[in-house]
Amino acid sequence: MSILDSIQKTFQPQVPKTSSIVVVGTVAFDSIETPFGKSDRIIGGAATYISLAASYFNKNINLISVVGGDFPKEQILLMNARGVKTEGLQIIEDEKSFFWKGSYHLDMNTRDTLITDLNVLAGFDPKVPESYQDCDYLMLGNLTPTIQTTVINRLRHRPKLIVLDTMNFWMEHTPKELAVALEMIDVLTINDAEARELSGEYSLVKAAKKILERGPRYLIIKKGEHGALLFHENNVFFAPALPLEEVFDPTGAGDAFAGGFIGYLAQTDDISYENMKRAIIYGSTMASFCVEKFGTERLVSITEDDIEERVQDFVDLVQFDISLVE
Amino acid sequence: MSILDSIQKTFQPQVPKTSSIVVVGTVAFDSIETPFGKSDRIIGGAATYISLAASYFNKNINLISVVGGDFPKEQILLMNARGVKTEGLQIIEDEKSFFWKGSYHLDMNTRDTLITDLNVLAGFDPKVPESYQDCDYLMLGNLTPTIQTTVINRLRHRPKLIVLDTMNFWMEHTPKELAVALEMIDVLTINDAEARELSGEYSLVKAAKKILERGPRYLIIKKGEHGALLFHENNVFFAPALPLEEVFDPTGAGDAFAGGFIGYLAQTDDISYENMKRAIIYGSTMASFCVEKFGTERLVSITEDDIEERVQDFVDLVQFDISLVE
Repeated sequence: MSILDSIQKTFQPQVPKTSSIVVVGTVAFDSIETPFGKSDRIIGGAATYISLAASYFNKNINLISVVGGDFPKEQILLMNARGVKTEGLQIIEDEKSFFWKGSYHLDMNTRDTLITDLNVLAGFDPKVPESYQDCDYLMLGNLTPTIQTTVINRLRHRPKLIVLDTMNFWMEHTPKELAVALEMIDVLTINDAEARELSGEYSLVKAAKKILERGPRYLIIKKGEHGALLFHENNVFFAPALPLEEVFDPTGAGDAFAGGFIGYLAQTDDISYENMKRAIIYGSTMASFCVEKFGTERLVSITEDDIEERVQDFVDLVQFDISLVE
Repeated sequence: MSILDSIQKTFQPQVPKTSSIVVVGTVAFDSIETPFGKSDRIIGGAATYISLAASYFNKNINLISVVGGDFPKEQILLMNARGVKTEGLQIIEDEKSFFWKGSYHLDMNTRDTLITDLNVLAGFDPKVPESYQDCDYLMLGNLTPTIQTTVINRLRHRPKLIVLDTMNFWMEHTPKELAVALEMIDVLTINDAEARELSGEYSLVKAAKKILERGPRYLIIKKGEHGALLFHENNVFFAPALPLEEVFDPTGAGDAFAGGFIGYLAQTDDISYENMKRAIIYGSTMASFCVEKFGTERLVSITEDDIEERVQDFVDLVQFDISLVE
């Protein structure tokens, strides 16, 4: 039985139609150095990782992004073959794609940005094709907050769920625009350092309270190899990261997480807190695959059995049986 | 119903006798600075925290340590009142107790040692009173490996379970003595940086494999605010730390963890892997209380209801329901 079938069988016995996802974010070239090796220009970008990870759960993914004429057409066909529609992917033939070069420290949780060439991204005006209207789930990958809010505003109906990923750069350079975006969304995903920066609180519990007052109803704090926390009202859920023998390249792990998260939510079409917890386990699963090889290499070669086995690893990792006696 | 009763009711319907614990470690004065405040000379030491935490689960705790004439007698009576026997606590009247002064960084996971006055500890020769013989559970708090192995050798029968805590200082200064100790024990508890140092491996999975080859059958890697990992054969279990609004003083958290762990194991008298997982949750619970106030202040004021409530918080924190369909 396929993962899509088993999700539907377990959680949604009668799904009338497949929910649609719109993914906004970069599609780009990356050059990556880690303590264990380096890669030349390889395919990267937040929307690439998000779409690939989500494509294991949902086959109605609609990409909004921009690339230059240097971007390989076969890569776009590969995305299409995985159920990712690219009508909203602009190709500016006489410009270059966004390029990022980074170098990871030994702990793999911190990195230095060596080069950021915006190229096509500098003048990016996101287009929402007619076929993308009425989207159910909107995943806003890390980008200028203004582009993120523009997409929300260009959708005729508000999606059921809007998830936004951002980073410290926008907190520092466009705090007002980010504040506007925060008021429009349902779920915010950031890392622990960013949660501290955004809130001015060191305690993540206090940070979460402050951030949840600024708009989003759900906050996911990603802690890399230390797992992820989901805050909602007075609840907190913790999903560990799987202890891995090899972490080869953390690039895209947060985006693969977001892709697994939104893909699972869209396919189960259930945005309850309980289902968000499950979605975080699936997101963590996709992130754990992502880091095993450079770039998107591992993310395009997983089988459905691999995913089910690894979700079981997560279950085993945290499962314990304490029966409290009154 | 008390915690002791409920443990026995849940896990050991017919406990013939209460298992005994011998705790070896420092009983000392600490002076602590954190970003949130500082304390003058207060009661500290690994064996103090271990014994206090364990005393919520087991009332047959036998302390082996040494203090100077400056150590307050009422503190010893307080320990006795909590079920901690002190026949093995030597008092060297004309010397001073061990003193440690440390300062925590903002992240509360790293600290600088400012002063270490060994005092009575310099010549410490651990005595095992006759009444401590036939102990069931041995908890060796962080100390010179030679003192730790001396206690093992002075016990006529090997305990059911020997748990050893150590630190980077002994890895660097007495690696041979530590290697001997590792071969004699069942469970090793160290933090993540120490696991990396001891094994020479950055990946904690690889580090654990190497360390388990050196003697212990179980390895607990403590990651502070990021939780703890239990490795055993090819299994790994992860217990999160509870996200707290306030972390006031991390001193003794690792020892409170060890105390809750050994106390729970001794009282349930079950050293299976499944029960070790539960013991780690109880250990994490005691650590979460410990950090809420300076020194041992919180650890002596918990109620049994507090503990049960907090264990429930741990259950809620990681509980999710994924039913994989074949």
